[in-house]
Amino acid sequence: MPDWIAVDWGTSHLRVWLMERSGAAIGQRTSSRGMGTLAPHEFEPVLLDLIADSLPDAGPLPVVCCGMVGARQGWSEAAYASLPCPPPTTETATRVACEDGRIEVFILPGVKQADPPDVMRGEETQIAGFLAQEPAFDGVLCLPGTHTKWVRVSGGEITGLRTFMTGELFALLSTRSVLRHSVGGDAFDAADFRRAVSGIVDDPAGLAARLFSIRAGSLLDGDDPGRSRATLSGLLIGAELAASADIWKGRNVCIIGAGGLSDLYRQAIETKQVSVRTVSGDGMTLAGLVAAYRELRKTHQP
Amino acid sequence: MPDWIAVDWGTSHLRVWLMERSGAAIGQRTSSRGMGTLAPHEFEPVLLDLIADSLPDAGPLPVVCCGMVGARQGWSEAAYASLPCPPPTTETATRVACEDGRIEVFILPGVKQADPPDVMRGEETQIAGFLAQEPAFDGVLCLPGTHTKWVRVSGGEITGLRTFMTGELFALLSTRSVLRHSVGGDAFDAADFRRAVSGIVDDPAGLAARLFSIRAGSLLDGDDPGRSRATLSGLLIGAELAASADIWKGRNVCIIGAGGLSDLYRQAIETKQVSVRTVSGDGMTLAGLVAAYRELRKTHQP
Repeated sequence: MPDWIAVDWGTSHLRVWLMERSGAAIGQRTSSRGMGTLAPHEFEPVLLDLIADSLPDAGPLPVVCCGMVGARQGWSEAAYASLPCPPPTTETATRVACEDGRIEVFILPGVKQADPPDVMRGEETQIAGFLAQEPAFDGVLCLPGTHTKWVRVSGGEITGLRTFMTGELFALLSTRSVLRHSVGGDAFDAADFRRAVSGIVDDPAGLAARLFSIRAGSLLDGDDPGRSRATLSGLLIGAELAASADIWKGRNVCIIGAGGLSDLYRQAIETKQVSVRTVSGDGMTLAGLVAAYRELRKTHQP
Repeated sequence: MPDWIAVDWGTSHLRVWLMERSGAAIGQRTSSRGMGTLAPHEFEPVLLDLIADSLPDAGPLPVVCCGMVGARQGWSEAAYASLPCPPPTTETATRVACEDGRIEVFILPGVKQADPPDVMRGEETQIAGFLAQEPAFDGVLCLPGTHTKWVRVSGGEITGLRTFMTGELFALLSTRSVLRHSVGGDAFDAADFRRAVSGIVDDPAGLAARLFSIRAGSLLDGDDPGRSRATLSGLLIGAELAASADIWKGRNVCIIGAGGLSDLYRQAIETKQVSVRTVSGDGMTLAGLVAAYRELRKTHQP
């Protein structure tokens, strides 16, 4: 039997771990019932479906959740913590009133920055997991995704935040704009990617003019889709690097996440002769949930 | 009975005018059968449907077409003319072999620029119409639209071209990205628009960072949709102005087109203390088709 439940509940995914007090996972379940597909009253039954066979007769079992489950349209709104602050724990979590007395649900808050306005919900728990491994880290974390986050971390606190819609822009432009005719397929020319990054980092104003050039280049010069796709990606990531230079320049940069997109960010940053480290994001959310649960034990256990 | 037929055949529209030799229109028909909806063999019957009642028994009647009808996926490809050049006329038009001997179809070519690669198809005919009214114009024409064109014109020739996907980007971001939750409705705050334009023209690198701020501003500060919508529009048009400054700075700028979008471009350019003129685009395509037909009469009529 688990001692508690860890839950990563995003817009399009739900991951649940059955946990021991020590922080070891003894089981994992996943579902496609992301927050984006659910009305507020549906969260509790969806969660119970996944864990009913593991609930004790006597309760309640703590359930610690992070992610969009705490958004206004989620299960129950968990108000943002304000920067600068350490990653939130159960101490500031929102308690949800459940129908089933066998569970006791905590939703971790996201983090907000007042000026310029910015928010995160879920990434703060990945950062908590990262800081559990490297509590003394001082530098910048880059979390690539649909909305990439650049996060300034110092003294165990999140001190600054900037979000870029680069991933969403790439998806829209490559599948729904006129550029879709020029960038189809999976081919990707690494040299063109780096060339586009460098060009835009040096001349960020050029971005708006260079997008349609991709289409014209394929019409007039027969540029192949792999080159065009890499150029589009390089232009957008390059523009992001230019607009985040004040954050990463001269700092210790660490990318959280492995695989395709994180590797592109690494290559892009390296064009600026900045040394960058990549750490796998696997397990980081769970490590952050474990850190949040430890706080609960401190404050709520006898 | 008409002496010839003028046709503006774009991706999503078809406009046909029944014309006298003098250049006067004696009838107009429209259809939603744009080039984007048609296979090559469908163009002739669609056109004949619209004009069959006006065809002479003895033929053939000249039909002069412009627009995407001449694209590779259109009726018959009309190869681009290369800059610098005057707007194309029937002299360099593609002749289409028709099944029906009562019509003789000419498709006007678009215009291309080799470096940086750029193209237009349809706008060159609007420019021909503009030059028919103002043959001595020396300056820059701005043609706002889904893909806005900035066109350098001098000595009766098109000498330079830059296309921006600003309109398409605004449509995608405002209806399909996370920003759709923040910019809905028709409200539009003019002061926020001008503020966003100025901010980005002075700091074009900031665009990538400021997009998500629109979403965060509405979440945290309750920014209303009219302000957010105007800010998004101002950021995108401002980025376009920054990336086209080398074209319009110190030159005579004329916007072709009236109504909402053209007015936004005028307001945006005026934030830079540049004086700009707006002329209605109504009738300009037809005037360009008339100019192209005059060339045909010179070369083909007895």
